[in-house]
Amino acid sequence: MSKNVLIIEGDGIGVEIIAAAEKVLKAVNEIDNLNLTFDTAMLGGRAYDQYGKPYPDDTQTKARAADAILFGALGGPQWDGKTERHLRPEAGLLDIRSDLGLFANLRPAVAFEQLVAASPLKPELVGGLDIMIVRELTGGIYFGQPRGIRTLENGEKQGFNTDVYKESEIRRIAKVAFEAAQKRNKRVCSVDKANVLEVTVLWREVMEEVAKGYPDVELSHMYVDNAAMQLVINPKQFDVLVTGNLFGDILSDEASMITGSIGMLPSASLDVNNKGFYEPCHGSAPDIAGQDIANPLATIMSAAMLLRYSIGAASSADRIQAAVGRVLDAGLRTKDIYSDGMTLIGCEAMGQAVVDAL
Amino acid sequence: MSKNVLIIEGDGIGVEIIAAAEKVLKAVNEIDNLNLTFDTAMLGGRAYDQYGKPYPDDTQTKARAADAILFGALGGPQWDGKTERHLRPEAGLLDIRSDLGLFANLRPAVAFEQLVAASPLKPELVGGLDIMIVRELTGGIYFGQPRGIRTLENGEKQGFNTDVYKESEIRRIAKVAFEAAQKRNKRVCSVDKANVLEVTVLWREVMEEVAKGYPDVELSHMYVDNAAMQLVINPKQFDVLVTGNLFGDILSDEASMITGSIGMLPSASLDVNNKGFYEPCHGSAPDIAGQDIANPLATIMSAAMLLRYSIGAASSADRIQAAVGRVLDAGLRTKDIYSDGMTLIGCEAMGQAVVDAL
Ligand SMILES: CC(C)[C@H](C(=O)O)[C@@H](O)C(=O)O
Ligand SMILES: CC(C)[C@H](C(=O)O)[C@@H](O)C(=O)O
Repeated sequence: MSKNVLIIEGDGIGVEIIAAAEKVLKAVNEIDNLNLTFDTAMLGGRAYDQYGKPYPDDTQTKARAADAILFGALGGPQWDGKTERHLRPEAGLLDIRSDLGLFANLRPAVAFEQLVAASPLKPELVGGLDIMIVRELTGGIYFGQPRGIRTLENGEKQGFNTDVYKESEIRRIAKVAFEAAQKRNKRVCSVDKANVLEVTVLWREVMEEVAKGYPDVELSHMYVDNAAMQLVINPKQFDVLVTGNLFGDILSDEASMITGSIGMLPSASLDVNNKGFYEPCHGSAPDIAGQDIANPLATIMSAAMLLRYSIGAASSADRIQAAVGRVLDAGLRTKDIYSDGMTLIGCEAMGQAVVDAL
Repeated sequence: MSKNVLIIEGDGIGVEIIAAAEKVLKAVNEIDNLNLTFDTAMLGGRAYDQYGKPYPDDTQTKARAADAILFGALGGPQWDGKTERHLRPEAGLLDIRSDLGLFANLRPAVAFEQLVAASPLKPELVGGLDIMIVRELTGGIYFGQPRGIRTLENGEKQGFNTDVYKESEIRRIAKVAFEAAQKRNKRVCSVDKANVLEVTVLWREVMEEVAKGYPDVELSHMYVDNAAMQLVINPKQFDVLVTGNLFGDILSDEASMITGSIGMLPSASLDVNNKGFYEPCHGSAPDIAGQDIANPLATIMSAAMLLRYSIGAASSADRIQAAVGRVLDAGLRTKDIYSDGMTLIGCEAMGQAVVDAL
């Protein structure tokens, strides 16, 4: 039975990094006889320009039908501050996450050996770093009701949002974290602010309860302010880090920056059946879009994650990752990861190099 | 007219760092004829043990009457998980902030030249770093209602908190930030998550409105996830960073760790009349309490901030800071900031050294 992959460029460098990753994915599809079919759709700013909303109906129909989605990036200055919040490019991302129930966001923060020198941290803190951040993606303050801006009796405006989690939401993301840890170093650190926020008191309770089902995995808890510090002074202490939507947004970005390899980091957002949305951790970088200098490797690695989690083609995923390793070993570099003595190439050439190395 | 300073040790190393800072403060009081009077009270875990609550009535009475409060630190394993949230040591801190209306938390993140090597970041990213973080401290999700854990109709528990700010709260913290910037490099970066949270859409609007009254100060905006990254890769881009209670908790801790000087960083929490609560940025470090190895310099610098903001004795504050500089230049170091070739001393000796250098 053939599986369908929906490919969405998005905005900015999304176009060129997806072109490169698509080439790699299609090559592996041939080599490994994966029998994948492909379709395309739009999401974000250009989608808004064409359809009047960032998550158009056409995209919704195709996304619901697809087995997996490979996405580039979205947003750009031309859509900043111009429209209401629900019409902005980012709303497209929030809408598709919610619509497809993509509650489990997996963001590996890995320091590639070849790129440790690019980290802002001292090399000894970063070498060998390999964290898996598991972020809850369809709940918490991102989607909580009530929300809005109201006018008080004295005429003042007041803005409000609701951070909310129920047991079942916490339980299912906890399971994802514990199962990930079982395949890794068997440690889960749950990040909360249980000394202040009741919503995270419940979070901590449910984590403890779920932990009982995974006696081989060690659970610890950390406050979010401390986690933000520990990621800087001792990131290697973490194996799997699990947290809610907002803290996950902040900490996963902090962690990705620490690796020095942000142009290399993929992400997966999964539903309960491992249907997934795959995208690089970095943004749409409108300042360098269209210049063929973006790094497609994070998107190519996202395609590898797609094969692993949503298609069940682990060996094809390994094939892509090995090819990326060979390309780096050969000294090929895009501008963002370039250092003395390496060979500077563009986005398209990098995609081709990975295809050649497959 | 004499002014009254309330001194609160708290828990853990609070006892010894306050002893050292108190000595310095009393010495300056003599030298500069400041006419300060002193009183003491309790807050946190030991306060709970003695009075049954972390912010006892006796402390409340004295704190309301005082002109300024110098505080050590609170918390420790003996109070972890034992009591309800509102009886935990940290609740004492939240209660006193709210009770006294200490809405403006000022946390300088400064890299001391002598300690740049202690930063986890590469020295070139940190040398000369000098950020002022202005955190709103009595609003937002820390205090928002409704909050709690309820049972849904299906029997599931649900935790919830409310993030809420009204215009007047945002306006007054904005003014603190802009006024701080006028005395510094005239740049304010306001951190929010306006692409997702309505409460921060209002935050951003009010920041823009207040900025009009400070045409000499440049205002920029940054999303919190990006701020967490920028603090790691390019912290020196910031002058004054202003944000809400929760984001301020996370980012100020991250920033203090980046300096490599966390044992050196003071903080002030001010009300509308510059009455203030002063404490070091670091915690109560129960693991090293009572061993005379804690670093009292952050608390001593907090005493300097107290003189500057709440007593209006800027030259006395300068005197303390100069004395700390001389002690560091003389190579005296507590354990946390020790490096080869320096002279290792204890907490008490460090306090005495600053007194001697006054
Ligand atoms: C674009 C934005 C809405 C989004 C988020 O906050 O989730 C992004 O920062 C992310 O992490 O994918
Ligand atoms: C102890 C805790 C409640 C407190 C806070 O979150 O505000 C602390 O982290 C701080 O930053 O002063």
